[in-house]
Amino acid sequence: MKKDLALFNKIADRLLKTESEQPVATPIAPEELFNTLDISLKDTPASEAFFEETLEKLVLNTPRTATKLFFNQLFGGRNSKATLGDLLAVLLNNSMYTYKVAGPQVGIEKEILHKVCDIIGYAKDSDGTFAPGGSMSNFMAMVMARDAFNASIKNSGVSQKLTLYTSSESHYSIPKNAAFMGVGRDQVRYVETNEKGQMRPEKLEVAVKKDIANGFHPFFVNSTAGTTVLGAFDEIPPLSVICKAYNLWLHVDGAYCGSVIFSKKYKHLLNGLNQTDSFSFNAHKMLGTPLTCSIIITQHKKYLNDSFSNDAAYLYQTDGDDYNLGKTSIQCGRRNDALKLWTLWKSVGTKGLEKIVDNQFHLANVARNYIQNNPEYSLFSYEESISICFNYKNIPAQTLCTELYEKGKLMVGYGTFNNVQFIRLVTINSGNTETEILNFFQVLEEFVATNPSLHRREIFEQ
Amino acid sequence: MKKDLALFNKIADRLLKTESEQPVATPIAPEELFNTLDISLKDTPASEAFFEETLEKLVLNTPRTATKLFFNQLFGGRNSKATLGDLLAVLLNNSMYTYKVAGPQVGIEKEILHKVCDIIGYAKDSDGTFAPGGSMSNFMAMVMARDAFNASIKNSGVSQKLTLYTSSESHYSIPKNAAFMGVGRDQVRYVETNEKGQMRPEKLEVAVKKDIANGFHPFFVNSTAGTTVLGAFDEIPPLSVICKAYNLWLHVDGAYCGSVIFSKKYKHLLNGLNQTDSFSFNAHKMLGTPLTCSIIITQHKKYLNDSFSNDAAYLYQTDGDDYNLGKTSIQCGRRNDALKLWTLWKSVGTKGLEKIVDNQFHLANVARNYIQNNPEYSLFSYEESISICFNYKNIPAQTLCTELYEKGKLMVGYGTFNNVQFIRLVTINSGNTETEILNFFQVLEEFVATNPSLHRREIFEQ
Repeated sequence: MKKDLALFNKIADRLLKTESEQPVATPIAPEELFNTLDISLKDTPASEAFFEETLEKLVLNTPRTATKLFFNQLFGGRNSKATLGDLLAVLLNNSMYTYKVAGPQVGIEKEILHKVCDIIGYAKDSDGTFAPGGSMSNFMAMVMARDAFNASIKNSGVSQKLTLYTSSESHYSIPKNAAFMGVGRDQVRYVETNEKGQMRPEKLEVAVKKDIANGFHPFFVNSTAGTTVLGAFDEIPPLSVICKAYNLWLHVDGAYCGSVIFSKKYKHLLNGLNQTDSFSFNAHKMLGTPLTCSIIITQHKKYLNDSFSNDAAYLYQTDGDDYNLGKTSIQCGRRNDALKLWTLWKSVGTKGLEKIVDNQFHLANVARNYIQNNPEYSLFSYEESISICFNYKNIPAQTLCTELYEKGKLMVGYGTFNNVQFIRLVTINSGNTETEILNFFQVLEEFVATNPSLHRREIFEQ
Repeated sequence: MKKDLALFNKIADRLLKTESEQPVATPIAPEELFNTLDISLKDTPASEAFFEETLEKLVLNTPRTATKLFFNQLFGGRNSKATLGDLLAVLLNNSMYTYKVAGPQVGIEKEILHKVCDIIGYAKDSDGTFAPGGSMSNFMAMVMARDAFNASIKNSGVSQKLTLYTSSESHYSIPKNAAFMGVGRDQVRYVETNEKGQMRPEKLEVAVKKDIANGFHPFFVNSTAGTTVLGAFDEIPPLSVICKAYNLWLHVDGAYCGSVIFSKKYKHLLNGLNQTDSFSFNAHKMLGTPLTCSIIITQHKKYLNDSFSNDAAYLYQTDGDDYNLGKTSIQCGRRNDALKLWTLWKSVGTKGLEKIVDNQFHLANVARNYIQNNPEYSLFSYEESISICFNYKNIPAQTLCTELYEKGKLMVGYGTFNNVQFIRLVTINSGNTETEILNFFQVLEEFVATNPSLHRREIFEQ
């Protein structure tokens, strides 16, 4: 192992240096990939020298998600304390299903879950787990809701027409999960949003009533904390009132922005969270841990157990069930996704998590101010969001994003709301400061200035 | 990052040293955990010194899965090349959904999938993905099978009584997944096995016929390659004949032992694999990569796309769908689980993977020979399996395993077949040699010799 640890350090050094010198890797067209890098697998081993050379080349040609010019996803940057934890998790290689084989790592996971429940005011009887990503956290919430609505489903299968509700701006995992779980995509009702991308509660109630009148069985409402495009927060209190009135499970999908729970200044965006049935958030998004670190908690430990426990005498052989986490997880063997969040949290405290969150909103304000003070930009997103949606000189967003990527200048994506397409700048890398945000605009403007074809395309496409 | 990389190296060095000096960590009773280690999370940061001290203590008190005295799970050991790959994956932190953000890592994943399909003789139209563990690979196979049986289910939900078939020795994820997917646990038929733990095909056919006669809709058969207790392989050819006759999807759950595909000597255990619809295996088990590295492939790319794709304009913005892996995965954001297998495979070649597999069977032979040549042992498992099931001096297996664990001597588990409970030794750590296997028995025997209470318990419990 020591030799390969040395090689890891060598390549890591090289990567860190390259990231700072050239923040965007020159992209390789997919059709050129196998000609550019020898990634082929063969019967015989690669020589040691060739292996090292190829691996380094591979690493240095991989898109750089940790640099100051990466704004393409709802994650970015590299929190060094969280990275430290995840590197150690690789070496330790515990599976999180039992206390016998994970030991104190079980305690780590339970401490995180317990603290999160505490912070958001969930009841004493709450519990949760780590799922492999936000989609799967939503899936777990939806399965719990379904089984809570009708306990016979897990044994007998679905036979009723169940319906569920989510905003038209919510994540695609909701219909995808509805298909997986035997409820069906057609049973997903997309509730209209207001101009800020927030679900309209009155429209939700209309939809629920209509379904009931038509003999459907509503069981689940998904509220989004940070929509993928605008970064909007559905308002929980009115949804909560409707859910209680019609006996619907209320889940908050906070994959993107649920981490506002750590901020005194922004937790008001999740007012009413303590009135919900389940809540998920991805620490690998706002908190900047390596992928994946998704947490799902519920106020109803009973339903978590009912939907996810399974006897397995060959596996659960020591210690109480409270410490055998396999009984509340969707998986069997499960990677340790908790340690990276623990190393971060332990080293900066809850106050440090708050600073991370607040900084992202600060950077968003910097970006919005810049846009609003510059007439060549138009803004399409709102306050209290870390997604800044804009267009520049009316250049089509898709064209500009693609060119910036293909020329290796900048990684940023685009989105659409109300049939308008725009660039979506995500200020989620909390390692950034005002400087990097202003540099983003500078790089973009210089690129446009030196590529007059972009203007011609604007005229042509309009 | 450099400072935390230095800390990683310091703790890693200490861990490697401790692993060799004391291969079993002294277990901490769950109720003592929070008194022994300060894993609490607070508002304020831990001081740097305290953080480092606590983290090191935590790491050194975590169960050691990589040592020569760990035989407790269906994984173990630490392949240094695979570990190197996974450490780099943490640093690179790409999400595998798009080519834009994962680049050549997409190529890595596709090369692995392509080679696996090639090795097992799957048709040209095959494809696959990496799922977060063997349970989820099975889930993906079951969802594809369900949707292939009735394409309207993903939109309309389940309304028929669907039935599926698996042996009584198969993994618990099959009924758990049946519940998740809206089919229901009651619709799982547990087919009887023969004395070696292999599914009896004639019993399968009886069950299918009976269900059809009763108006059920059979759609899926799960064949196991390496049952959790005995490590048995269901024989594929007779199952395949039945599946073709009744139009059932045939999946092979090779989570534990599917990696025999890489061995000329043992791939016959999966004869007929090219006649199946889907196949999964966990490289984190037999191939020794860090958790998790689970691969699911199917001969029907169409069904993989039908069940798992989803449009998301905000995400898929460049490059063809063949390179946007999010369209064939169960997750949205997805960790890079491919690089660790690639670094291993590239560095040792397919022939090297073969050696890893063959060595595990060699070690199993060593263990079985030892047991068979020693009258104080009784053997309960069979040839061509890397699970060696036995009892020693008639001491109850549960008692012996628990005492060995609680005294920090050895990590090994127990299992049950035909109402007999026994110790299950898994020779899956391919870093081991004959020496470590013989040492296992020596440690066990010395422990029993110095703990006469174990004998008393035997008499008492009989």
